[in-house]
Amino acid sequence: MSDLDQKIIGMHLWHLSLPVVSRRDHGIGSVEGACEIIVVQLAAEGGAEGFGEAAPWSVFTGTPEATYAAIDRYLRPVVVGRRVADRSAILRDIHYAVAHCTEAKAALDTALLDLTGQITGTAAWAILGGKCRDTIPLSVSLANPDFDQDLALLSRLTADGVGIVKLKAGFREHAFDMMRLDRLARDFSELDIRVDFNQGLSVEEAQMRVRDVSSFGPTFIEQPVRAHHFAVMARLRAQTDVPILADESVFGPEDMIRAAQEGICDGVSVKIMKSGSLQRAQTVARIAAAQGLTAYGGDMFESGLAHLAGTHLIAATPEITLGCEFYQATYYLAEDILEEPFPVQNGQVVVPDGAGLGGRPDLGKLNHFSIQKDGTD
Amino acid sequence: MSDLDQKIIGMHLWHLSLPVVSRRDHGIGSVEGACEIIVVQLAAEGGAEGFGEAAPWSVFTGTPEATYAAIDRYLRPVVVGRRVADRSAILRDIHYAVAHCTEAKAALDTALLDLTGQITGTAAWAILGGKCRDTIPLSVSLANPDFDQDLALLSRLTADGVGIVKLKAGFREHAFDMMRLDRLARDFSELDIRVDFNQGLSVEEAQMRVRDVSSFGPTFIEQPVRAHHFAVMARLRAQTDVPILADESVFGPEDMIRAAQEGICDGVSVKIMKSGSLQRAQTVARIAAAQGLTAYGGDMFESGLAHLAGTHLIAATPEITLGCEFYQATYYLAEDILEEPFPVQNGQVVVPDGAGLGGRPDLGKLNHFSIQKDGTD
Repeated sequence: MSDLDQKIIGMHLWHLSLPVVSRRDHGIGSVEGACEIIVVQLAAEGGAEGFGEAAPWSVFTGTPEATYAAIDRYLRPVVVGRRVADRSAILRDIHYAVAHCTEAKAALDTALLDLTGQITGTAAWAILGGKCRDTIPLSVSLANPDFDQDLALLSRLTADGVGIVKLKAGFREHAFDMMRLDRLARDFSELDIRVDFNQGLSVEEAQMRVRDVSSFGPTFIEQPVRAHHFAVMARLRAQTDVPILADESVFGPEDMIRAAQEGICDGVSVKIMKSGSLQRAQTVARIAAAQGLTAYGGDMFESGLAHLAGTHLIAATPEITLGCEFYQATYYLAEDILEEPFPVQNGQVVVPDGAGLGGRPDLGKLNHFSIQKDGTD
Repeated sequence: MSDLDQKIIGMHLWHLSLPVVSRRDHGIGSVEGACEIIVVQLAAEGGAEGFGEAAPWSVFTGTPEATYAAIDRYLRPVVVGRRVADRSAILRDIHYAVAHCTEAKAALDTALLDLTGQITGTAAWAILGGKCRDTIPLSVSLANPDFDQDLALLSRLTADGVGIVKLKAGFREHAFDMMRLDRLARDFSELDIRVDFNQGLSVEEAQMRVRDVSSFGPTFIEQPVRAHHFAVMARLRAQTDVPILADESVFGPEDMIRAAQEGICDGVSVKIMKSGSLQRAQTVARIAAAQGLTAYGGDMFESGLAHLAGTHLIAATPEITLGCEFYQATYYLAEDILEEPFPVQNGQVVVPDGAGLGGRPDLGKLNHFSIQKDGTD
């Protein structure tokens, strides 16, 4: 009998409100004051515990309320009572057990992976296919409507050795984006600059604004128009030499196949909160690679717990070549929830080698930041 | 100043659990005991009220919890305080204000439409484009795992003049479906029979089962395989002379365009709970018609309130030619919530001519069946 034959006997849930240090604007909406996440803990018969995080965003993937209900009511009976061994079967079942709620499914997958790693004493990256890198270049996003505050952040980032910056654009007038790009080109020319419109451009202005932004030669331009406007994405891609990245347009493998077929992008932002599991996220990156496209490790408004899941994913997925944006725990949350700081050194995320995720949330912090919680044992 | 310049000053919400008379099985899941809906009431300055219903299904469109939170927290600020006149602007704004939650958006659209009709003394069908029919042929679905109970229902249906029946298939073995189709062909040959697999078939069995079912010559075969499996749908369509209908594969206009382009169906089941508004549902039917495809008025596990919205939609949309399935209020709920019975005569839904929806829920019943409620004035 394998150690993994033990059953999952408990599930606990926390709905957290985590204060953030500044306002952030994006093409599809803003975040201010706090962001909300759901943390799930699974307990196995032998006493091992696994943690996972859902980081929903109401205008993008779903609401925290939908996430909480999905796990608490609809997915709990599919998970509790099953053997830890049966991770792929559990994931197959939860995929269709509730519509949407990809963040809820990603959180449960993360907790199952962590639990498997804790019981076997194996790092998550080993379970996901083995390591292809020990560190991942970190990208930090600039989305503050007050650019002076972002300039102060930039000084801190360059002092910390961060070499990649993603400018959030399209939430104000074109001149504001051009002014910021000009300033970055002049004073931070050593940085790798990317631009992300988060669906913010209308079809009338998209061609002109993408063309002007392209003149600065960013590494890529992400999601200039609405998720479903594949034909407009394809046309913009045809009109610029700068690679176009798809984010909101591609949630799972099904979308990635269409995106490649319809030629809407040169690469994709891979996020477990969109794909609904680490395996589905790997599949998205592999479909992209099979068609000659690149992949980037995106995030949502996450804590270090979701960052850890993404870090193991990228550590084990050679197809994700453009680095990651797991910066919230270090640069955006007023306080992260992990017991030990999320590992970033010299602008690189350091892949942990401990069992499971190689890090766990502080229970005191979970209770401190909780606005709703529940559990059965 | 128009009467419609008055502001929306109040919103009330009820999360209801409505007992049903039997178990029902479908390819993607079962319903037993009760179904859950959300009713929303909007109040205007002058005292007029409008009602709308969201009928979510957790394995199909979303959960009642997600629906409730969407309306209560994320859409409320987009609606309350606006002018009744500004319906199209409000709908434009709620479309992107929260991800998914199409049932929540449909409920608010219905309430806005009802409110507009109540204030102007106009029937909803007139606001939606004017009437193309006074009655709509009613289809009743057979989904009881105990076929004897469905045979008893069939006797009642034929006595009531109902001429259309949709057999839910694919939730048990093939022989069960064939036995039921054989019995229907033998004893109820006067009925217009349709078959709905609700995504229930695997790719290994789909070809054989669709072929065998086709031999009975049903009017259409609906959604044999999973929503995202467009290529399999297209192949099945190519292999049978019976029209293939898309349901779960097509939520809104964006999907309908793809469905037509990729040749996955001969027609579509139009539902406001999928499309997110009556206007978007009309658009789905019109995209279908523009490509020579047909449309059917589908439903979810609804009360008579959502049936009323669908009835006005079909009354004003010539492109929906295959009748409707607004039978739950009459044949499936233990008790409906409307003040007056949902109007069905001789197997036809009768289009109401009263102001707005031409019917309203009984507040006593809303409070009686409520498991959660909230409101502001």
